[in-house]
Amino acid sequence: MRMAADRSFDRFGSRRIDIGRIVLNVREGGSGPLILFFHGITANGAVFTPMMARFSDRFTVVAVDQRGHGHSDKPASGYEADDFVEDIAALVRKLDKGPAILVGHSLGSRNSVTAAAAHPDRVRSVIAIDFTPYIETEVFDALDSRVNAGDQVFEDLTAVETYLSRRYPNIPADAIRIRAESGYQRVDGGLRPLASPAAMAETSTGLRADLVPAFRDVKKPVLIIRGEDSKLVSAAALAKTSRLRPDLPVVVVPGADHYVNETAPDITFRAIQNFIDA
Amino acid sequence: MRMAADRSFDRFGSRRIDIGRIVLNVREGGSGPLILFFHGITANGAVFTPMMARFSDRFTVVAVDQRGHGHSDKPASGYEADDFVEDIAALVRKLDKGPAILVGHSLGSRNSVTAAAAHPDRVRSVIAIDFTPYIETEVFDALDSRVNAGDQVFEDLTAVETYLSRRYPNIPADAIRIRAESGYQRVDGGLRPLASPAAMAETSTGLRADLVPAFRDVKKPVLIIRGEDSKLVSAAALAKTSRLRPDLPVVVVPGADHYVNETAPDITFRAIQNFIDA
Repeated sequence: MRMAADRSFDRFGSRRIDIGRIVLNVREGGSGPLILFFHGITANGAVFTPMMARFSDRFTVVAVDQRGHGHSDKPASGYEADDFVEDIAALVRKLDKGPAILVGHSLGSRNSVTAAAAHPDRVRSVIAIDFTPYIETEVFDALDSRVNAGDQVFEDLTAVETYLSRRYPNIPADAIRIRAESGYQRVDGGLRPLASPAAMAETSTGLRADLVPAFRDVKKPVLIIRGEDSKLVSAAALAKTSRLRPDLPVVVVPGADHYVNETAPDITFRAIQNFIDA
Repeated sequence: MRMAADRSFDRFGSRRIDIGRIVLNVREGGSGPLILFFHGITANGAVFTPMMARFSDRFTVVAVDQRGHGHSDKPASGYEADDFVEDIAALVRKLDKGPAILVGHSLGSRNSVTAAAAHPDRVRSVIAIDFTPYIETEVFDALDSRVNAGDQVFEDLTAVETYLSRRYPNIPADAIRIRAESGYQRVDGGLRPLASPAAMAETSTGLRADLVPAFRDVKKPVLIIRGEDSKLVSAAALAKTSRLRPDLPVVVVPGADHYVNETAPDITFRAIQNFIDA
């Protein structure tokens, strides 16, 4: 098995935090106002390492393994939006660093906007990356298939990277490496995802729930970021979202697909910085 | 002549400020961090009264009559971008309330973004309403015609309002009234624009100067707002601007033309608030 030469995501220390409801694993660093990062389905907090590195000189950066993912608890059930959202509210309270800026990708975006609507006192603002209301049924069907296909045993890290590179053809090699090295555990016969297959299936189903109420009702600032080539958020879904909330600013990142922060970290960083420094 | 029943823009006190280079007339109110408002060509600071009213509970709001306009000085020449920009820098210094949030419409947007690029120490952030690089030559030609056609003597306020309503068919009556009551002076035979015709012609010509360098170089946060039905900023011009600066967030206001803040004050307010509270 190839050894990991540069586990860059280890630059931020990990710890598990008991938030009462559940124990969550986080990576953290920096100092200043609090930014929390929430990954997409099947990923874990390590995917935000490049973002954390860019913000850690001015902010306390905390990337969360959401329930069912990474090294956090994986209860047998409880993967609806509200389950994730109450985790966020409890975590912000536990960290005790005031209202947090929430940066969420995909599942993490859904959870962050919903948390801001439900718990405005815990949230300063939200950066909602490539997940909006009005995502089409066939898009969710395709997502289910991809999510469920990930539950495999891989021979070694190279096999994982090969698989991930095919699944995410636009994510650059260094970001694929973070996913491979951070998201798998040794089992008999090789490497298997840390994410719980049952949790992934339930979480994926839960993503279909209507997100219009959260976007309609949220009163905290929200920046919507979409990858121009996203197969998750269509141009039509974004346009309908903008009709629902014409006051919410939009950044469309050229050359990026759904995985905006991993594919285009510099533009994503500058867009977030531009928003939270305004 | 019909009397002005409700000069709502008079709720904010006016004063003329000597900024060294020139004397500028401003309307001001509120308290808190500084927001400066810069109007479009031929208008004056009073057009921002509805915005000022919305922000004055949390911000010091100052709407400026830019050089050549309203009750500010009208030198015989000096209406290039740099002339307006140095006025902004000198005014922020004179007001001595720290870096300012600049809200600019059209000419004011051009001036605000350019000021942020040239004087980042004086600017916290910019809301750039309906003026971008890449505006087409024929659009500027049409603007020149409209600007120059405004230099007339009107019989009375009703005649002014009739003229303005035809020139700006989407601006609601209360905002038309502000323009009419704030932007004209009594002369022999009736009412004539406060704005200097020679200054307007030179200013309009100056709007054609290349705005790419300012947008490319500005490092302070900028929110771009466009009216969906704008005849000034085409969808193509906005798309090219987003290619130039993919990190800058965009709000496209449905049902609004070029005069976004007068046509859709609530969405404009919420969009600005969303941006500066993030």
